[in-house]
Amino acid sequence: MIRDNHDYDQYFFNTLTIICKNKFNLSSKTYAVIMAGGAGTRFWPLSRRRMPKQVLSIIGTNSLLQDTTSRLEGLVPKERTLVVTNRQQLKVVASQQPDLGKENFLIEPTPRNTAPCIGLAAIHIRKIDPDGIMLVLPSDHRIKNVPAFQDIVRRGIEVVERFDPLVTIGIPPARPETGYGYIQFEPPGDKLPSGVHRVRAFAEKPNLETARRFIKSGDFYWNSGIFLWRAERILAEMEEHLPEQYHQLHQIEAAVGSPEFEQVLSNRYKRIRPISIDYGIMEVSSASIFMLAGDFGWSDVGSWDELYRISAKGRDGNVCVGETVTIDARNDYIYSPDKLTAVIGLNDILVVNTHTTTLICHRDRAQDVKAVVDELRKTGRKKYL
Amino acid sequence: MIRDNHDYDQYFFNTLTIICKNKFNLSSKTYAVIMAGGAGTRFWPLSRRRMPKQVLSIIGTNSLLQDTTSRLEGLVPKERTLVVTNRQQLKVVASQQPDLGKENFLIEPTPRNTAPCIGLAAIHIRKIDPDGIMLVLPSDHRIKNVPAFQDIVRRGIEVVERFDPLVTIGIPPARPETGYGYIQFEPPGDKLPSGVHRVRAFAEKPNLETARRFIKSGDFYWNSGIFLWRAERILAEMEEHLPEQYHQLHQIEAAVGSPEFEQVLSNRYKRIRPISIDYGIMEVSSASIFMLAGDFGWSDVGSWDELYRISAKGRDGNVCVGETVTIDARNDYIYSPDKLTAVIGLNDILVVNTHTTTLICHRDRAQDVKAVVDELRKTGRKKYL
Repeated sequence: MIRDNHDYDQYFFNTLTIICKNKFNLSSKTYAVIMAGGAGTRFWPLSRRRMPKQVLSIIGTNSLLQDTTSRLEGLVPKERTLVVTNRQQLKVVASQQPDLGKENFLIEPTPRNTAPCIGLAAIHIRKIDPDGIMLVLPSDHRIKNVPAFQDIVRRGIEVVERFDPLVTIGIPPARPETGYGYIQFEPPGDKLPSGVHRVRAFAEKPNLETARRFIKSGDFYWNSGIFLWRAERILAEMEEHLPEQYHQLHQIEAAVGSPEFEQVLSNRYKRIRPISIDYGIMEVSSASIFMLAGDFGWSDVGSWDELYRISAKGRDGNVCVGETVTIDARNDYIYSPDKLTAVIGLNDILVVNTHTTTLICHRDRAQDVKAVVDELRKTGRKKYL
Repeated sequence: MIRDNHDYDQYFFNTLTIICKNKFNLSSKTYAVIMAGGAGTRFWPLSRRRMPKQVLSIIGTNSLLQDTTSRLEGLVPKERTLVVTNRQQLKVVASQQPDLGKENFLIEPTPRNTAPCIGLAAIHIRKIDPDGIMLVLPSDHRIKNVPAFQDIVRRGIEVVERFDPLVTIGIPPARPETGYGYIQFEPPGDKLPSGVHRVRAFAEKPNLETARRFIKSGDFYWNSGIFLWRAERILAEMEEHLPEQYHQLHQIEAAVGSPEFEQVLSNRYKRIRPISIDYGIMEVSSASIFMLAGDFGWSDVGSWDELYRISAKGRDGNVCVGETVTIDARNDYIYSPDKLTAVIGLNDILVVNTHTTTLICHRDRAQDVKAVVDELRKTGRKKYL
């Protein structure tokens, strides 16, 4: 149980140095970097400021974060697992990871999107292991087939060791989803192992027409946000494409292990302009970018509607959690663990019934849950945030 | 505040005898009989076994029952107001009527529908005042224009005094409602005062096609369930058309004022076969039945949907009680006094959010709230009833 977060990075640095130098004898060491700092408003009202999506048990009994770390068993040792979070969420995040110690947590002083977050982890890894490989993982995704996931990661590590590229994992698309980014890939080349493709382009979230075209073409996969690369490699990319951000990270790196570290981190990190790794690096890099196809039952669980989609359906296509009565109600998602919820004559709706708040939403409008959160923020109703 | 209900009828009898013989000098005395024993499942989950619809404050700050009694001010004195209820509901009913005393309440030992309920009141009134006129009122209706209502009742009393008929109040229909019974009336006759019609027939709740035909014909009004007649007159009708029920009532009447009254009431009343006044008397009587047109903003407030219909609409046609956020949500009724309710992308729905239960229902399906109650009863989930 974490009580305060002073000197985490000091601990992290010292511990990893010892571990990496003495304990493992792999050709290159792989470090898991789990990004667990997301605010996540799309699962409101269940997700709140201090209860972000990754710590919710919305699939099964464990949280998505717990599933993410246990998915690494046998792949990356706990000692090389790094969870990046923030001060507000540290307590709940750490309490869900009793096997991890202080040294496993990295605190972002302020949210700056994925590129700085990954950079912050990378400078720590580079400092203790110049050859260290990073497996970057979102903390709030669902992966159904864990052995298949681990196989892909192992092959990714081989690819990184052999070619030193940026590796991304692409998901064979199941539908023309407009909520995901896409990766366009080249046909298999002679020199690459089977299942590994050069990336032609990254595409941001498309409109429905474009998404349909992507699916039809056969050479667009969903962008999972799972990456593999050497820490040194991604930092070199940042130095080239995000020089301002890199400059601040470099100052932070210099202070790692020093008594001033907390102060420097706080001062420097907040000056970093937020930018995503996709937009800041992947879409602009001239380096080799490889995609591995990851057919392992992935979902970003990006909304209540997506949660409905990946859940096992009961009678009339409904997914009911808690005590419910449904009459002429089909394909509904009803989350009501503490109360009775009765639905009559309404199909394709989402109901999320918590102690203080009830959300009722057409399934097509799950993305607009954010708009409710915005409205509550604007009108100062903080107790519901 | 009522503590027990022993000897009510004794009190009622004695008190009314004294009052009627000494205090009022009208040609005939009118007694208001308010039927407040209904169970009312159509307002579930707000209405519960011990909180029936009539005691809920669903329109404004007073309950429908409170509105019903205050509507009589200046028309019928409190001393001649009789509220018929049952043991389960007595406490809450009485607590809402601090101006009424023990003598104003009549307890039905068991529910037997409207004809026996009216008969029970009639035998009490006849015993103390053979010429007494009864104004029979449901306790859970809304009447917007109270002066117009009182005018109609006054005219009804005159008609009763002059012609000794059964009088019913018909409501000019606003739409082809299938949830109401209808009254078909004759064209105005020479011998009747203006606005008074002979009734040709009573029609039970019609289907939509029939309801449309009724509206088009112009000679069908809604049956309000408000009646006026002499107590003696309605008892004579019961003796003729409901002889079995009348026999039991007659036995009860004989015991009014005696020490055995409670026992006799309990034994006899439970033997009475339930039947409505419409089906048992109005539809079969060969007596003169007159209808007065009551254009006073009446509603039976028979469902959440009807409550939506008669409520003042806010933005986007929504009616919101409590804290709500609506996004692309139109013509919704949202009752959420203690919690936040957010609705996105759903029109024409009813949401009733209580501490323990949430109902979400398409407005067209408001009648099916009963089906939820049935389901809960069937599956033994009594705490929600």
